[in-house]
Amino acid sequence: MNEFDLIARLSASLPSNSSVVLGAGDDCAVLESGQPGRYLLFKTDAVVEGIHFTSDAKPEQIGHKALARCLSDIAAMAGNPTAALVTLALPKDFKAEFIERIYAGMNRLAKNHGVAIVGGETTSNPERLLISISVLGEVQKEKCVLRSGAKDGDALFVTGELGGSRSGKHLDFEPRLAESQWLASHFPIHAMIDLSDGLAGDLRHLLQRSGVGAELLARAIPISHAAKLQAREKSPSKPPLLAALTDGEDFELLFAAPGKIAVPLLDAWKNQFPSLRLSCIGKITATLGLKLRDKSGVRSLEANGYVHFA
Amino acid sequence: MNEFDLIARLSASLPSNSSVVLGAGDDCAVLESGQPGRYLLFKTDAVVEGIHFTSDAKPEQIGHKALARCLSDIAAMAGNPTAALVTLALPKDFKAEFIERIYAGMNRLAKNHGVAIVGGETTSNPERLLISISVLGEVQKEKCVLRSGAKDGDALFVTGELGGSRSGKHLDFEPRLAESQWLASHFPIHAMIDLSDGLAGDLRHLLQRSGVGAELLARAIPISHAAKLQAREKSPSKPPLLAALTDGEDFELLFAAPGKIAVPLLDAWKNQFPSLRLSCIGKITATLGLKLRDKSGVRSLEANGYVHFA
Repeated sequence: MNEFDLIARLSASLPSNSSVVLGAGDDCAVLESGQPGRYLLFKTDAVVEGIHFTSDAKPEQIGHKALARCLSDIAAMAGNPTAALVTLALPKDFKAEFIERIYAGMNRLAKNHGVAIVGGETTSNPERLLISISVLGEVQKEKCVLRSGAKDGDALFVTGELGGSRSGKHLDFEPRLAESQWLASHFPIHAMIDLSDGLAGDLRHLLQRSGVGAELLARAIPISHAAKLQAREKSPSKPPLLAALTDGEDFELLFAAPGKIAVPLLDAWKNQFPSLRLSCIGKITATLGLKLRDKSGVRSLEANGYVHFA
Repeated sequence: MNEFDLIARLSASLPSNSSVVLGAGDDCAVLESGQPGRYLLFKTDAVVEGIHFTSDAKPEQIGHKALARCLSDIAAMAGNPTAALVTLALPKDFKAEFIERIYAGMNRLAKNHGVAIVGGETTSNPERLLISISVLGEVQKEKCVLRSGAKDGDALFVTGELGGSRSGKHLDFEPRLAESQWLASHFPIHAMIDLSDGLAGDLRHLLQRSGVGAELLARAIPISHAAKLQAREKSPSKPPLLAALTDGEDFELLFAAPGKIAVPLLDAWKNQFPSLRLSCIGKITATLGLKLRDKSGVRSLEANGYVHFA
């Protein structure tokens, strides 16, 4: 039994109740709030030293990243984060100043987005720092965007530029909260996800939940400067397009909206968020599977998220 | 700067917003739900291998304990838990069956209390298992019981029997949800806390939040069979009363209610919960500090929660 089989098996038998609109399997859990017209969003995420950051990261960056990952998931449903709880599992030799600096990073981000930090706890994890954060959010029911609504003929969009996040962006990215709320308020967004596992991998999640396929246009995929730089500097190098397709932790938004509104959406975006790129990178297809179109034709992207380049 | 100074300093500068009724410092955070008459409760708690359980604990017990600790905090505010998110940080060599059994323990407890498990995540923590759970609950505003409402003249009550939890109870205790909801529905409970750090330590938390003192009656403190057994079997032994005062992880309820209702409350309890002991163990005093009365008189319990016995 592999990891995905196990998760599927565990998810199938989780207890539920009448408050649950959507349990495991999307960016956040969606719950009835008791308020007409509003859902509660509920999300948890952890970062672990040596896995999500190295010991040379600044504590402020670690705190920022730990909270920003959760906020990015709230953004993926066009929600508004309201409150967070923080669990710090501390290694043996921690210093008070280190903790204060982690909180400084979290607090600054929380304040920027109106999020209250309402408690949590500290415990011990002798070998390495682990931070687990849970976040509550809210969203108007008709504006809540799931992974599952993509339709044949939709255009696919992605914010920002992709790839190479590990060279720095993964520690200081901004969750796209204002952007996703604006999108859901102004356009019929059919499906959305935030990019944590890489464009190809996360698009597969969206396609799977929506029961559709997609074709990406290679030349439309926005490649980050960091990915291009890494391709020049590293050896063996990863082609920048491959980095944009498969590098994790971009924390940009990927979404599907009707193809006929692609042009007005791009125009309105440019007006609203002139400093953040939005790219139309392909389309949803009724045929299942993920394909990439480039100058040499159309080919399948492999199931593992990776693609072989000549 | 010690741990408590650090927590106080961090808590003072946490960002807040208008949804926050009560942030860090009580059993749960209390948030406006948007529904008139109801609060949201929000809590997170983690258990770590080697600290909260040893590697010989059954996985079902580990799962049970991880969730039960959070539910006990919801109980301490007389709330009703609704949904939980589970983060498993897994050591290198975990087996699928181990995870399934952890979930079996959590799922059973969740089902018993109508709690939905709505997702979470798995991540890696190479050296040891860590489980972080966050729980949402709800409570009628007028029935929400804080730590801070104890008043001079209140009687102090505790459920169950105390001490010696580490010999087994800490892995299979039942969160006192039905009991606390019944209490808050039928009696004016002024303050409540669940016992995780030991009676003396947690009572101090309640006193501090309420700005009052207390006097405990030594002979009224219910001592568990486990604590008595340990005192007989271990050498050097801990006097059973000391164990009941200072052992952690009892996960019973400690609460304060007006002294004049002590007798009807005890009578009604016996009728409602005949198999669970409820003891009146002392009283709230206007004079600050924690005192213990026994046959030799009244003496102070030390600030560290421990008391010297002759």
